[in-house]
Amino acid sequence: MKIASVTLHPIAIADPPLRSSYGLHAPFALRTIVELKTDDGITGVSETYGGDVPLAALQAVSQRVVGMDPFQLAGLFEDLTARAAPAGESVPGGRSQTFLVPGENPLDLNTRTFAAIEIACLDIIGKAVNRPVCDVIGGRVRDEVSFSAYLFYKHGGGGGVGTDKREDEYGEVLSAPATVREAKQMIARYGFREIKLKGGVLEPDEEIESIRQLRQEFGPNVPLRIDPNCAWSVDTSVRVGEELREELSNGGYLEDPCPELEGMGEVRRRLLAQGITTAFGSNVAVTSFPDLPKAKQLDAVQIVLSDPHYWGGMRQVQLLSHFCGVMGMGHSMHSNSHLGVSMMAMTHVAAACPNLTYACDTHYPWQTEQDEVVVGGRIKFHNGAVRIPDKPGLGVELDYDQVARGRERYNAIPYRKRDDTAEMRAHVDPNWERVLPRW
Amino acid sequence: MKIASVTLHPIAIADPPLRSSYGLHAPFALRTIVELKTDDGITGVSETYGGDVPLAALQAVSQRVVGMDPFQLAGLFEDLTARAAPAGESVPGGRSQTFLVPGENPLDLNTRTFAAIEIACLDIIGKAVNRPVCDVIGGRVRDEVSFSAYLFYKHGGGGGVGTDKREDEYGEVLSAPATVREAKQMIARYGFREIKLKGGVLEPDEEIESIRQLRQEFGPNVPLRIDPNCAWSVDTSVRVGEELREELSNGGYLEDPCPELEGMGEVRRRLLAQGITTAFGSNVAVTSFPDLPKAKQLDAVQIVLSDPHYWGGMRQVQLLSHFCGVMGMGHSMHSNSHLGVSMMAMTHVAAACPNLTYACDTHYPWQTEQDEVVVGGRIKFHNGAVRIPDKPGLGVELDYDQVARGRERYNAIPYRKRDDTAEMRAHVDPNWERVLPRW
Repeated sequence: MKIASVTLHPIAIADPPLRSSYGLHAPFALRTIVELKTDDGITGVSETYGGDVPLAALQAVSQRVVGMDPFQLAGLFEDLTARAAPAGESVPGGRSQTFLVPGENPLDLNTRTFAAIEIACLDIIGKAVNRPVCDVIGGRVRDEVSFSAYLFYKHGGGGGVGTDKREDEYGEVLSAPATVREAKQMIARYGFREIKLKGGVLEPDEEIESIRQLRQEFGPNVPLRIDPNCAWSVDTSVRVGEELREELSNGGYLEDPCPELEGMGEVRRRLLAQGITTAFGSNVAVTSFPDLPKAKQLDAVQIVLSDPHYWGGMRQVQLLSHFCGVMGMGHSMHSNSHLGVSMMAMTHVAAACPNLTYACDTHYPWQTEQDEVVVGGRIKFHNGAVRIPDKPGLGVELDYDQVARGRERYNAIPYRKRDDTAEMRAHVDPNWERVLPRW
Repeated sequence: MKIASVTLHPIAIADPPLRSSYGLHAPFALRTIVELKTDDGITGVSETYGGDVPLAALQAVSQRVVGMDPFQLAGLFEDLTARAAPAGESVPGGRSQTFLVPGENPLDLNTRTFAAIEIACLDIIGKAVNRPVCDVIGGRVRDEVSFSAYLFYKHGGGGGVGTDKREDEYGEVLSAPATVREAKQMIARYGFREIKLKGGVLEPDEEIESIRQLRQEFGPNVPLRIDPNCAWSVDTSVRVGEELREELSNGGYLEDPCPELEGMGEVRRRLLAQGITTAFGSNVAVTSFPDLPKAKQLDAVQIVLSDPHYWGGMRQVQLLSHFCGVMGMGHSMHSNSHLGVSMMAMTHVAAACPNLTYACDTHYPWQTEQDEVVVGGRIKFHNGAVRIPDKPGLGVELDYDQVARGRERYNAIPYRKRDDTAEMRAHVDPNWERVLPRW
């Protein structure tokens, strides 16, 4: 069994006007659907970041992939990562992606490219051996994976533009009461049992109030998290930690409150000195294995949010999860705007990580049926969890009509790169800049 | 595909009178060959420690294994290790196996049991998908794995007893010149390019002299290691480190010179203070994941010698190897007296570990063709390396006549547990005791 062809489908999917410290989501998010076919007729699929850079990287590796045995993944990883993390490459803020939106960090370009190939190869292997992917990579430790209600502050109006506009079921959410309303709607629909709020958008006091009202509404058995994506100074982070010491306990955490590991380590020390043990999660200060020893040494991060898309695929996430367990750290999962192929990749790897200690993130509720590319429509949640399907591989097949529509949308829009700053300037504030820390 | 039957073959294999700080090897080593058959007729094999305790543990888990999907390994691991490391279990010297021969540490009984099942399941999976095991677990990063010439001080006479006595190609080796002779013989026969000497047997000055003469004979391009299995005090370890500062450089290391991580950490500090950077390996002070953070914190160990047999199988060794890489530690592999099934399990997992930084240990040259249980006879070395065969699974099949002979030997001998102290008392010194540190 060899890989006979690589087909790349650049698509665009509607995305609502969600806010974060990076700025504003564009009306369409970019994704790439990767389709590998073997010489014996098996098709494997994956989904990854979209736009010119990811697409070019995947095109560049296609020659290496055609003719490859899909089992020979470690060799491909070595080939790709030997070229990764070039010493000379300059990234503002160092190795971390503090100043970069996920999917745009040049230092993890090659692990992203590998991941897209690996996941499609694992889909092939699963189909070849008639087993779900979670069982191909070591075996499941759970049959379903819990996700969080991922709340965003947002402007009114759904994703898309013009005749390709989506409905907006949540409306404008720019206050604490609106956040509670959004949470109630999302939980009623999907059954989530944990909540994460994307912060770094409103004044810290309004975000603190949002968390307090969420706790009041849902009680102490629904864990709460807030993620301002480094928008706060060390002092502000300490103040939020103090104010929310109760609300972020019981399975909650504070995620990337301020820039860089040193800052988070200082916040941690100052909170611990007051007896506040709130855990810190990260998918900004920690985005690669070399970040981990320092994160541990500084006690800056207690929970790593992995992501198969940029950590280098499913097996790298398993390695990360295990590493975290040995070091006494927790493990959960980050996401970006995505469709059902990514949803299932995240679910399969999460099912095969013994040390998964929190419900995973997913943007999936923010996408719509109209954009889904998997046969049978959107992946279903049951009480906030996604079940491992009783099907081989990832358990999804491409709906090629839907892929074609995604590609039409991609062709119809001008942008080829996520740029939340440009959107912010175009629609909210022409002078907007990403300032870290903002508060 | 389900596992339909578990067959356990307790066997005994001749072992020469090798010495270590544990005492003297008995004339026969005990092994267990594990054979799993699936309902669709595939047979998977593995090899592990022998005697009553390993056998009883494997018998106890057989009920759990029959009916299992061989892909569902993580669930079995969780079931077994949840019962492992019971807090109340008392082990002299704490968690480490300083005072226990490998395979006899009650705290890793369950990871040993799991490993034997996992490796046989991976052999099944490899056969089912027509791929070598190294490719089933992520893909090879090398097509052959290098092993060391594993030198022992020894008494004259081969393994076995009476009519079942083996020839002794190496004779008595209880001096530095005899060690060089042993090394030359072994390298001429197998082509090894690195050398490890099991120490802790003669006076430290004679062992230092052995290393010096090995360096003189083979030159600086053949890395040298010495492993006294904790026989030395901190002071003696420092002295040996000083005396062999040149000889143990260039890819060499000093392995478990003294008991416990604290001791090794102190030796390390005292040597570093003199600018001596000799790396320390360990498979005694570090035998499980919980040992690693402390080993790193104390800088007591720079190279972990894994072993799929007691670390919990192939995937746990991959996790360990990767962990070591992230923490800036090297990784090599430990062995015990074994046959070709273990040889291939070690080779496959080593081929699938990117962070394998030294030639692996193997006792294999100390066993003989007469005891081998794999079809076609003993595994071949090419320039000190074993190649991944172009066959599915581990690439070996059982020779049932040879297995039956091994079982006859097992039935003919009285002992059911490795006891190097008893052998030492019976054949060398009736008053011998294992004293740590001895020098």
